[in-house]
Amino acid sequence: MLQELNNDTICAQATTAGQGAISIIRVSGSQALPIVAKVFVSRKGRRIEEMQGYTMCYGFISGCNGSVLDDVIVSVFRSPDSYTGEDMVEISCHASPYIVSEILQVLIERGCRYAYPGEFTRRAFLNGKMDLAQAEAVADVIASETEASHKIAMKQLKGGFSKELAEMRQQLLKVVSLMELELDFSEEDVEFADRSELRELLDKATSRISELVSSFKLGNAIKNGVPVAIVGATNTGKSTLLNALLGEDRAIVSNIAGTTRDTIEDTVNIDGILFRFIDTAGIRRTLETIEIAGIERTYYKIKQASVVLLVLDYTRQDDFEDSIKNLAANFNSKDKSLIILLNKIDDKPVAVTNIFEAHAADTVTPEDNVGKVCDSVSAIAATSDLSPLAILPISAKKGQGLDDLRTLLSSSQSSVKAGGESTLVSNIRHYSALKEAKEALLKASVALDERRPTDLVTQDIREALYSLGTIVGEITTDEVLDNIFKNFCIGK
Amino acid sequence: MLQELNNDTICAQATTAGQGAISIIRVSGSQALPIVAKVFVSRKGRRIEEMQGYTMCYGFISGCNGSVLDDVIVSVFRSPDSYTGEDMVEISCHASPYIVSEILQVLIERGCRYAYPGEFTRRAFLNGKMDLAQAEAVADVIASETEASHKIAMKQLKGGFSKELAEMRQQLLKVVSLMELELDFSEEDVEFADRSELRELLDKATSRISELVSSFKLGNAIKNGVPVAIVGATNTGKSTLLNALLGEDRAIVSNIAGTTRDTIEDTVNIDGILFRFIDTAGIRRTLETIEIAGIERTYYKIKQASVVLLVLDYTRQDDFEDSIKNLAANFNSKDKSLIILLNKIDDKPVAVTNIFEAHAADTVTPEDNVGKVCDSVSAIAATSDLSPLAILPISAKKGQGLDDLRTLLSSSQSSVKAGGESTLVSNIRHYSALKEAKEALLKASVALDERRPTDLVTQDIREALYSLGTIVGEITTDEVLDNIFKNFCIGK
Repeated sequence: MLQELNNDTICAQATTAGQGAISIIRVSGSQALPIVAKVFVSRKGRRIEEMQGYTMCYGFISGCNGSVLDDVIVSVFRSPDSYTGEDMVEISCHASPYIVSEILQVLIERGCRYAYPGEFTRRAFLNGKMDLAQAEAVADVIASETEASHKIAMKQLKGGFSKELAEMRQQLLKVVSLMELELDFSEEDVEFADRSELRELLDKATSRISELVSSFKLGNAIKNGVPVAIVGATNTGKSTLLNALLGEDRAIVSNIAGTTRDTIEDTVNIDGILFRFIDTAGIRRTLETIEIAGIERTYYKIKQASVVLLVLDYTRQDDFEDSIKNLAANFNSKDKSLIILLNKIDDKPVAVTNIFEAHAADTVTPEDNVGKVCDSVSAIAATSDLSPLAILPISAKKGQGLDDLRTLLSSSQSSVKAGGESTLVSNIRHYSALKEAKEALLKASVALDERRPTDLVTQDIREALYSLGTIVGEITTDEVLDNIFKNFCIGK
Repeated sequence: MLQELNNDTICAQATTAGQGAISIIRVSGSQALPIVAKVFVSRKGRRIEEMQGYTMCYGFISGCNGSVLDDVIVSVFRSPDSYTGEDMVEISCHASPYIVSEILQVLIERGCRYAYPGEFTRRAFLNGKMDLAQAEAVADVIASETEASHKIAMKQLKGGFSKELAEMRQQLLKVVSLMELELDFSEEDVEFADRSELRELLDKATSRISELVSSFKLGNAIKNGVPVAIVGATNTGKSTLLNALLGEDRAIVSNIAGTTRDTIEDTVNIDGILFRFIDTAGIRRTLETIEIAGIERTYYKIKQASVVLLVLDYTRQDDFEDSIKNLAANFNSKDKSLIILLNKIDDKPVAVTNIFEAHAADTVTPEDNVGKVCDSVSAIAATSDLSPLAILPISAKKGQGLDDLRTLLSSSQSSVKAGGESTLVSNIRHYSALKEAKEALLKASVALDERRPTDLVTQDIREALYSLGTIVGEITTDEVLDNIFKNFCIGK
């Protein structure tokens, strides 16, 4: 976006589109008051240009042909005490798409420009009303669906994260300036900086940045949902399970094995925790190219998941061993939980003999039966080095056992619900910048250890400072800004 | 609704639900300021209760557990200078469904009640901020999709219609009070009222009310769309035509004759005029009960329509005569226009010989052919006493000829577009009340002519006054109000 565009006075609807009681049209820029003055007629003969900031006035907007377009209330904000930091007027009109579009048209005819996505917030950033991390938090605050994600976003919006980064930068700047002072006097071989103090400051900053980098897993889970991969052989009812969990027909369900070729994702709020369920292609031996790609994607999704739900078909007990061993080969139990689901318990098993023999006896109740199958599954899992949180008998079709599953999922992710008081990184741009900063600081640390020339050490620290600076936008480019704000809605 | 509920302080989201930049939560009632004061913290230490009307304050809403729920701007309105006439606070927060629901929750915990549909506007009416016709206009203003319908609604909202009714009531009250004065002195056989003046006043009022009653056809067409019935034999492509006009797959289209059993309606804005297209069941001889009902409904829809589109299938010219004569039997040409559409002109006719012979000759171009078929149709229409505005060759499937149809429709309804400067009645409740008033006045007029006892004449006029009074709500009941406001959205 060209810098000169920032001088325009912009307008857009700030409320959600559609019929309702009230809609708000925002106008921001140096000409906001004079332009609105041309189309607004006060009931009491007041002039907008003479109104103080944070006051309102009742009147009407006059259309192009002089007709009354709508009764409105205008709210006046004066630079710098406004959202964008510029002069602003908010026009509160009836929430009619026709009226909103007519008012915008009149404003544009009188000299406004229709705003780009996120342009109000971008101006707030450019005018120093908020830093970049705070501007990004605006979008996160709006998108928050749970208490925990709202808490992270609000903390970031309030500048808590920015403040912490600023302190860290301050410490690193102190290190670097002391070292650079030495450089100026390098011929005299003076050491201004107390090396052990430098070391301490550097280690402290590095360790805090490492913590922030590590917090991304939790922060991301809170913001985008705990990733839960639903895996299993073809036709075990994975899509039916996903639909049951989502409460709608999100995935196409059919009896044809291999129906789900693309991974399907959607989020559900369970007990205040957002879960992102990921339906995957059933794993089976296949020669079809499309399906092979799907199965590879499944392995990738398993790798990314925090929880894996392995779905076994109770009626096809012959397949259990294959399924479990297949998963075990792609499962790193250190960083994820496993829950094994014995699905279709409402149907009769068609092949059980190779798992256990008791089934033949007439005295065995269906419940005993399921219990014994669970034991067998547990045994197979143990020999494959898998320790599932639980083996749950369910019927995805009839909704049986799903409450148990939800309770188990929720209790396994209590850290996500708590959210915690400490700062959590939830933005991938911030995560990436912090990782770069961490690597640069580790390099600096090694250089310090090895007593490498001071200017090499400071160069690494300067790199870390640069990375940290990009987060709050002390260092930024139009390209970065375009990238951030293009995902905002118009009017934000 | 119980009267005592009107003492509650109510809250609701006033903007359209969903994510966006800003949402507004409205609070209205005697406790609006004290309740919001409990949850709002000003950045500058200002107290809401001390704020003047029409001023704003920046701060945050504190959640149940003391956490910051959101940064907000509160706008204060003081009774009686507010929408409802009560003390009001509007909370402008981030347009996040999570935040809006949390803020409403906090307000309810602090003593607010969640508002009923239309309760803010109902309170505005009860507190004398607007009459009932104006309150109803709020919903119409919001729903308006065209300039003409917006104009009617705005006129009504501004009280133009109410003012006219008030003048008429004033005149009639003058008549009635003069006559009732006579009654008091009846034993002395005095005539205070100049009978010819009474007559004149009565005639003037009756004639104006008649005009208003007649204006409903146009007013309703502007508000709800000009009713256009699409009729014809089964399988002539009526649903395909409807879909083409609506630009989407609104009607189920199949080749099975009799697919459309229910009438399907939807509106399209053509050149600033709202048209309500009504797809009807194809008319054919049938024994199926459901279809017979559908066909009866078709005749009813023809009766209600302002324009009838008769769709003929170019490839089945044998059916033309039947179709046209069938329609002629149910068509009153005085109050509606007819357009005959020759559909499927891209397909080859399967039976043409009985219409004209020229088709056999090799020298005839397809265009000639269509032209000749049009002439034949015109001749059949003439023998059936039908005068179509035009006979248009079209292909609904390929979109051929539809622009011509749109132009024809639009020019045939220019009065709807203009809207006119005079008052138009567009609300069926008002129409019904005006009709009652008109009938009462006609009865009064007859009674006056026949020199019936004065108290009989005045009784009729009082009836008319009552009917007119219900329109603006001078006379009303909770039941009438419930009926009107239940169709409003919550927050309006």
